[in-house]
Amino acid sequence: MSDFNIIRLHHVSLNVTDLEKARHFYVEGLGMIETASDDKQLFLRAIDDANHHCLVLRQADQPSLHHLAYRVSSEAELAQLEELFLAEKLPLRWVEKGEEQGQGRALRIQDPQGFPVEFFCEMDRVKPLMQNFHLHRGAKIKRIDHANCLVRDIDQAYQWYTEKLGFRCSEYTVSGEAKERLWAAWLHRKPSVHDLAMIREIGPRYHHTGFWIDDAKTILDACDHLASIGYHQNIERAPGRHGTSNAFFVYVRDPDGHRTELYTGDYFTNDPDWEPIRWELNHPQRATFWGTLPPASWREEAMPVQHILSGELLDVQPPV
Amino acid sequence: MSDFNIIRLHHVSLNVTDLEKARHFYVEGLGMIETASDDKQLFLRAIDDANHHCLVLRQADQPSLHHLAYRVSSEAELAQLEELFLAEKLPLRWVEKGEEQGQGRALRIQDPQGFPVEFFCEMDRVKPLMQNFHLHRGAKIKRIDHANCLVRDIDQAYQWYTEKLGFRCSEYTVSGEAKERLWAAWLHRKPSVHDLAMIREIGPRYHHTGFWIDDAKTILDACDHLASIGYHQNIERAPGRHGTSNAFFVYVRDPDGHRTELYTGDYFTNDPDWEPIRWELNHPQRATFWGTLPPASWREEAMPVQHILSGELLDVQPPV
Amino acid sequence: MSDFNIIRLHHVSLNVTDLEKARHFYVEGLGMIETASDDKQLFLRAIDDANHHCLVLRQADQPSLHHLAYRVSSEAELAQLEELFLAEKLPLRWVEKGEEQGQGRALRIQDPQGFPVEFFCEMDRVKPLMQNFHLHRGAKIKRIDHANCLVRDIDQAYQWYTEKLGFRCSEYTVSGEAKERLWAAWLHRKPSVHDLAMIREIGPRYHHTGFWIDDAKTILDACDHLASIGYHQNIERAPGRHGTSNAFFVYVRDPDGHRTELYTGDYFTNDPDWEPIRWELNHPQRATFWGTLPPASWREEAMPVQHILSGELLDVQPPV
Amino acid sequence: MSDFNIIRLHHVSLNVTDLEKARHFYVEGLGMIETASDDKQLFLRAIDDANHHCLVLRQADQPSLHHLAYRVSSEAELAQLEELFLAEKLPLRWVEKGEEQGQGRALRIQDPQGFPVEFFCEMDRVKPLMQNFHLHRGAKIKRIDHANCLVRDIDQAYQWYTEKLGFRCSEYTVSGEAKERLWAAWLHRKPSVHDLAMIREIGPRYHHTGFWIDDAKTILDACDHLASIGYHQNIERAPGRHGTSNAFFVYVRDPDGHRTELYTGDYFTNDPDWEPIRWELNHPQRATFWGTLPPASWREEAMPVQHILSGELLDVQPPV
Repeated sequence: MSDFNIIRLHHVSLNVTDLEKARHFYVEGLGMIETASDDKQLFLRAIDDANHHCLVLRQADQPSLHHLAYRVSSEAELAQLEELFLAEKLPLRWVEKGEEQGQGRALRIQDPQGFPVEFFCEMDRVKPLMQNFHLHRGAKIKRIDHANCLVRDIDQAYQWYTEKLGFRCSEYTVSGEAKERLWAAWLHRKPSVHDLAMIREIGPRYHHTGFWIDDAKTILDACDHLASIGYHQNIERAPGRHGTSNAFFVYVRDPDGHRTELYTGDYFTNDPDWEPIRWELNHPQRATFWGTLPPASWREEAMPVQHILSGELLDVQPPV
Repeated sequence: MSDFNIIRLHHVSLNVTDLEKARHFYVEGLGMIETASDDKQLFLRAIDDANHHCLVLRQADQPSLHHLAYRVSSEAELAQLEELFLAEKLPLRWVEKGEEQGQGRALRIQDPQGFPVEFFCEMDRVKPLMQNFHLHRGAKIKRIDHANCLVRDIDQAYQWYTEKLGFRCSEYTVSGEAKERLWAAWLHRKPSVHDLAMIREIGPRYHHTGFWIDDAKTILDACDHLASIGYHQNIERAPGRHGTSNAFFVYVRDPDGHRTELYTGDYFTNDPDWEPIRWELNHPQRATFWGTLPPASWREEAMPVQHILSGELLDVQPPV
Repeated sequence: MSDFNIIRLHHVSLNVTDLEKARHFYVEGLGMIETASDDKQLFLRAIDDANHHCLVLRQADQPSLHHLAYRVSSEAELAQLEELFLAEKLPLRWVEKGEEQGQGRALRIQDPQGFPVEFFCEMDRVKPLMQNFHLHRGAKIKRIDHANCLVRDIDQAYQWYTEKLGFRCSEYTVSGEAKERLWAAWLHRKPSVHDLAMIREIGPRYHHTGFWIDDAKTILDACDHLASIGYHQNIERAPGRHGTSNAFFVYVRDPDGHRTELYTGDYFTNDPDWEPIRWELNHPQRATFWGTLPPASWREEAMPVQHILSGELLDVQPPV
Repeated sequence: MSDFNIIRLHHVSLNVTDLEKARHFYVEGLGMIETASDDKQLFLRAIDDANHHCLVLRQADQPSLHHLAYRVSSEAELAQLEELFLAEKLPLRWVEKGEEQGQGRALRIQDPQGFPVEFFCEMDRVKPLMQNFHLHRGAKIKRIDHANCLVRDIDQAYQWYTEKLGFRCSEYTVSGEAKERLWAAWLHRKPSVHDLAMIREIGPRYHHTGFWIDDAKTILDACDHLASIGYHQNIERAPGRHGTSNAFFVYVRDPDGHRTELYTGDYFTNDPDWEPIRWELNHPQRATFWGTLPPASWREEAMPVQHILSGELLDVQPPV
């Protein structure tokens, strides 16, 4: 196993079809903080963030995932990652310093399952608003937590992220009775439940971005806030506790359908003898510990992903 | 308008088919406190209660509503109520002191819509457990709040309760476009949103009992507690905020299907110029302010009610 | 006992020495909503309020209590109250409709302990902001709850409010061992712990106004908000639970020293057999159920009260 | 700088003078879970814990700190640590597997400031009670978070932990005007605010153990629970938010005076460009963001620490 020091999922970049509508949703609705913007893009951060952005919105013709970005502990690791990716013959390009505003140079690839993924180390610093409580609004998002991806070949994806990139598994779900197989996995670099969740599905598609909120009450307050400014139809999945991850959640969707999980409550996963928690797909408390099933849209709808070189949206295919 | 001093909805009596299963749900699950019991009945109270019971469970062959009970401010009012009910030619009987354990004499009627309703003043006192926080368990129910009844003729029911018994209306829902008509009403005696909600439906059927919880977080904790002891399938309707009443809620069902609302958050309704809040049936935020619809079972299922004299369950009929 | 239908404590009017500083504290700090103002006065309301104001701030040379106001259920009761007060030979005057902006005519007296008290029925209606959650700010105050007064002769005050005006007692504190005497009482008209608390002290002085908040978490959020905009020195008494009243609280002081209690968690007190809860003054959990003592300023400092006719501040004297 | 992979502060071992009284406080009061015990010692764990203990209580003649324990990622690191400690000529001994029940072999030292500190990797696994919500009681402690030590020479301590053991600094406090010097530091291995806080004081003394709670409301519930079973005098410092660390806290003391912080709300500290937050000792919001000062006992009282070889309690001396 390699041991690149990937710190954590650091930001997500989404293509949206109406930047002003998106701004209203994320800034007025979710309360994210605008660091910079022009007529093509918007750089947002969360309350605890000491860097330029954890969410980038880009004006585009169709909504899709532009890229996920992981932060590494030093510039030197980018060169090592490049070596690995070249050996793997993955689509790859260097993003020069400043090409993504506020960010140092970055290595961008299409991962083996087709996801656009970026690795970088440097980003402009900003003053966190942690103790400027009067500026905490909407969902009072503290920081980005994880990305959830629908992959065609989860066995390959699991192996690649754990063996090549040093992700560890906190929980996983299996399906099938006669012959059991992996259905989903929660992988992490920071010592939480996940930086990256992957589910065996029609793919590649991007399911949601999870953001950390301090507590369940604040998530309920976020629902009230969203509903009172007209976003009640954007609250897709009612508040509940996940069986897997044990987190309390609500899911909301932006005007393009990009899905955000407001999330709180995971646990420490870095002890050396941690054993991943195993769930069976048909466990009645897996999806929601309280028994409620997610709505059909949550199970069925997800976003296409963009190619890092061509800019085309990748075709989606059934799981292998 | 008469002006009997009905204080509030005080307790509910339910017929259950397995007293031990019911005891486990209400005591171990919801954390209600057992005041007294024998092999046929169980008297439960809530944390703030200074009297013998706010919920009575009775062993029976079929689940149903045995009766709702309102407390009046003095014994003298019972005689005045009898006079009214006799004039109305309603089925009526006196329940002698002690016939319902811990309770003084009571006047029991079948109301014009068919609901078994009791009026009483005296009940044995007990020490409230308000500040015995170590004994607060499960849903940490503080007190009973309201009863929700499905009535065939809501215009009649509304008129009777407001004009004959002095209930006031806090909120109401109308349906229909060309010709608007009353669909539901929230009526109160104590200065909250309601002691009695009524909905135009197949009736008479009993929909749920609402209990007061201190705050939304405690309701979420109750879900965790219920789900961890195997009652996840009993959580029928996920947590949310009602448009009507503005309360935060979750709905759970006991082993017989009796429905309980864990409820928090209403407002003061006794100012002299209070104007009832009007909702249209098709308002997307009426049922849930956050947009989610209740599940089919919540909309369709409710309990039959028992006749106070014959003990028979009343036939249910479509709304008029 | 008379039976005037006093509904509840409805608003408080305070004299402040710098209206702009006071506005910043109550509007930006506590999040109260401005209904109307001019250069001499400011009318504020809370989230649930359906009427013009629950707090009036008036520019004055010295900070003091201008008056407390109780709402009655009809205009007719004002005449009955006048009759009582004339018989009692209390200082009295009619406040004409509109003299206090937004309010109908009112009867203002100096109560036997020297407090300026007003009774009124009519007030302009406004739309409550209950479900405009995006406009809930600061302490998210829902409504006024109670007034706390320091009186020289508590036996007289208790007798007058309970026997002449129909207040009921929910809790009380006694002091002394050989010969026990009343030290404090919590009196209510609405069915909560109190509309009016009175403590035997140097008086007449006004101790604080209590406002209702939905839950304890919101009170903690209010502290964060106040502290982040520079009001940390205004948080006088740290969050805790009262033994008496069982409420969760924090106390804050405005720029003039007027004290506000952010308060949540009382209970229903209108059952006919409610027996007041008795506390001994030296019970270690009386003031704070968690054992902490209030700071000296909380115990020692309070506001003078104004005469309704002369406008002079009343001399304060030791308790009798 | 060395780079031993110390994972986190893992457990604390305290000497108590009455094991039964201590058991009642930690199990009935704080809700910790008993894994094992005999008449001399008690092994407790928290809700999320997947290992044998995070707190050990040992019967002794005098209360003191027995040792702090850090977990490392592999057995191999223990040998490297031994090499370092031998070079530093620190008092050292190996604790054989099982000498501390449930734990593999451990290396125990007296650190340069005199604190008894243990390093280990292996510990018996247990099933976490994370989703057994019905077994969560008292303070609902999820896991241990940090230790707070009073050291005589903070410059030496800071240098040793950061340079020799690879701790990083999240926040620090400086005192003095003409010549500024370090007064306190928050050091971490896991990516939170701290595993180890150190304050320049009379030392060596142990100030408190911090345990992680999910949210502020649960900490308030813990106060209610403790106070209702007679531990109101054990609540030493009222709930508040720290300036430093930004955490919400309450401090309680066990029957021997060992101090526990119930703690929630820190932030992610492992980004490569994290810059420690600087506080001045006289900042009015440093100790409590809301302005309240800690009580004298909190500032002045702390526990002696035991020598790992002699078992004697170390003399305490003024800071250098």
